Amino acid sequence: MAYLNDHYLKLRAGYLFPEIARRVTSYCDTHPETAGRVIRCGIGDVTEPLPAACIQALHVAVDEMGRRESFHGYGPEQGYGFLRQAIAQHDYRDRGLDIADDEIFVSDGSKCDCGNILDIFGAENQIAVMDPVYPVYVDTNVMAGHTGPATEFGAFQGLLYLPCTPANGFVPEIPQEKADIIYLCYPNNPTGATATRAALTAWVQYALGHGSVILYDAAYEAYISDPAIPRSIFEIPGARDCAIEFRSFSKKAGFTGLRCAFTVVPKSLTAESRNGERLALHPLWARRMSTKFNGVSYPVQRAAEAVYTPEGRAQTGALIEHYMGNARILRDACAGIGLDVFGGVNAPYIWVSTPPGLGSWDIFDIMLEDANIVVTPGAGFGSNGEGFFRISAFNSREKAEEAARRIMGMEFKG
Amino acid sequence: MAYLNDHYLKLRAGYLFPEIARRVTSYCDTHPETAGRVIRCGIGDVTEPLPAACIQALHVAVDEMGRRESFHGYGPEQGYGFLRQAIAQHDYRDRGLDIADDEIFVSDGSKCDCGNILDIFGAENQIAVMDPVYPVYVDTNVMAGHTGPATEFGAFQGLLYLPCTPANGFVPEIPQEKADIIYLCYPNNPTGATATRAALTAWVQYALGHGSVILYDAAYEAYISDPAIPRSIFEIPGARDCAIEFRSFSKKAGFTGLRCAFTVVPKSLTAESRNGERLALHPLWARRMSTKFNGVSYPVQRAAEAVYTPEGRAQTGALIEHYMGNARILRDACAGIGLDVFGGVNAPYIWVSTPPGLGSWDIFDIMLEDANIVVTPGAGFGSNGEGFFRISAFNSREKAEEAARRIMGMEFKG
Repeated sequence: MAYLNDHYLKLRAGYLFPEIARRVTSYCDTHPETAGRVIRCGIGDVTEPLPAACIQALHVAVDEMGRRESFHGYGPEQGYGFLRQAIAQHDYRDRGLDIADDEIFVSDGSKCDCGNILDIFGAENQIAVMDPVYPVYVDTNVMAGHTGPATEFGAFQGLLYLPCTPANGFVPEIPQEKADIIYLCYPNNPTGATATRAALTAWVQYALGHGSVILYDAAYEAYISDPAIPRSIFEIPGARDCAIEFRSFSKKAGFTGLRCAFTVVPKSLTAESRNGERLALHPLWARRMSTKFNGVSYPVQRAAEAVYTPEGRAQTGALIEHYMGNARILRDACAGIGLDVFGGVNAPYIWVSTPPGLGSWDIFDIMLEDANIVVTPGAGFGSNGEGFFRISAFNSREKAEEAARRIMGMEFKG
Repeated sequence: MAYLNDHYLKLRAGYLFPEIARRVTSYCDTHPETAGRVIRCGIGDVTEPLPAACIQALHVAVDEMGRRESFHGYGPEQGYGFLRQAIAQHDYRDRGLDIADDEIFVSDGSKCDCGNILDIFGAENQIAVMDPVYPVYVDTNVMAGHTGPATEFGAFQGLLYLPCTPANGFVPEIPQEKADIIYLCYPNNPTGATATRAALTAWVQYALGHGSVILYDAAYEAYISDPAIPRSIFEIPGARDCAIEFRSFSKKAGFTGLRCAFTVVPKSLTAESRNGERLALHPLWARRMSTKFNGVSYPVQRAAEAVYTPEGRAQTGALIEHYMGNARILRDACAGIGLDVFGGVNAPYIWVSTPPGLGSWDIFDIMLEDANIVVTPGAGFGSNGEGFFRISAFNSREKAEEAARRIMGMEFKG
């Protein structure tokens, strides 16, 4: 008799984005005359083509795969040396951060890595997540059996939720409770907030003091323009002993459809075994990747390498400038009609307070029906997301400008 | 205090292929004069370039990614409809097998899928594996905590090992013990054996009778030329209610460096929940893939689609014929010096008995040192692999012929 993983049955049927898709489809089906007007500012997917340097690298690598003498079969599961070296050099060592090539693990996505990383941790860890939170952190812990059932408000028993609000600048206070594994995400999805050096230092100190591990999701790091804001957790002294960092080419270089990311696991990072020893996590993650992964597509790794060439850097810089231009336009539009806006300055997401008296799914429906704009209701990210909605800056300039015009034409009773 | 997953500590430090690599490197370092002569017939990696139809599809898709109007961002996590449809139609429905498009889950590799599938099963299942066995099945169960520690012979307590020997044609007998999840792999890695319809029918009957699930790894299905041998577990009546099938483009079309595979989860397949209900596994796997995966690279999915075009079919057919030509040459060479040979007829692996008195690591060392040929010692695949070694047919014709000549020149004392 085969038994299924009962923990899956705790998951809510309606994951946020499928529910949004359902409402949008339903609206379009019942309003065919305006269906074509709908502008999607909901899901955080890029819209602009891949940088030319990446396209060129892909063509060259594809041709290599077509000739016996330059064909590439299985690559190293942790990524080719050329890419690990480029990442460690440009993203870390050139910025004065001590990260070795073999501390970089190339993967096919940060979503995968954020979920898979739980493989190397024990079931007895107390998990802490931010609220609002990227749902993948929560759902993968539910699936792994690290939580009890969901409460009626959609929170899961056994998780420690760290409230992120305007009052704390969407950076959680250090908790009184113990937290063994702490997910932090900056620039934040969904709030668009960033964390100061002081705030991250406090978290690193907490983790070092408690022997905890910080899982630091820096997928939107490329959107930071303010030099005072840390781009990596490893800018904080001591982080090499308490943190894993996730990064991605998805939002940095438009790779959402191409698939390449990486995880940094310092060799000095340890966790405790059942007999009380502190052991390095690096060999566990290396073993996990060797056993359950076969490396990223060779042409895709060549495309990722091209991101670090002078042309690639200029082109990805222009991409980010484009999306951040959209962010300014959309942010100004929301502020212009009197809504409180957060984020959207060093992040491609704008987090907007709902007008008084309206819940986040109310404003979702109103934006869809009255302005034909798809946003993401904050409640979908956790109870502290209620009272907010998220607008994504990933769009063409034309659509961002049109969305801004429509927002400016909206009126809410104060 | 963060805790690590102690189950990882049960894994043997020396995984088979790293140990082989270590011995080969050591030989080459100490014998620089013959290092260049070494022919690798060890690891099962393809050597021939990608089919031209795939190269062409890749270039077209890469160009699409370079233009805004044809750019592809996030795709469906389960794979694009065009590829799921092509697979279900050509590999299943055209062969009279009832598999729907949405029962196909496109992934970046069968190794990943074989490991990840455990996510949706409970910890209380009795796991059965073949012996000799593809190490990934065992190691992923160890990592998931489904076993006790390793015995001194390298087997793991708690796993049910099903002996595969010349006496049973390397197809295990139905066990007396209960087995909730059963891994079967045909054409087999490492033995090159295939399973008859009768043998698979017996297993399907066992699974149906016990409510078990068969995890059927058919990564080498394309190498079957005998029409009497089943290419899919779904050719067996009742398999839709008890089996998951894994397939890959790696060996079928040379995608080891490109990364594309798929898993078939029939909607009629169920497993038991803790409260005794039989529930479908399809939504669990769909949820797993949505939450922990972001789809396969778009150009790679287009390349996989091209495998099913008339040109793609002709070109992949020629690739397989090439490797099977090598298999014949290598098989004949081993038989020619009086060794017992198995497999290599409907599979790209030849499984060879070691000469009397020699263990499988002995013959590994002799082949490396005397003939400069790298083989895989059978003992690396489990205790029933002792007394055998594996030769891979994945090579250029020139190297296969040279390896055969050297084997023919070897003499073993009988």
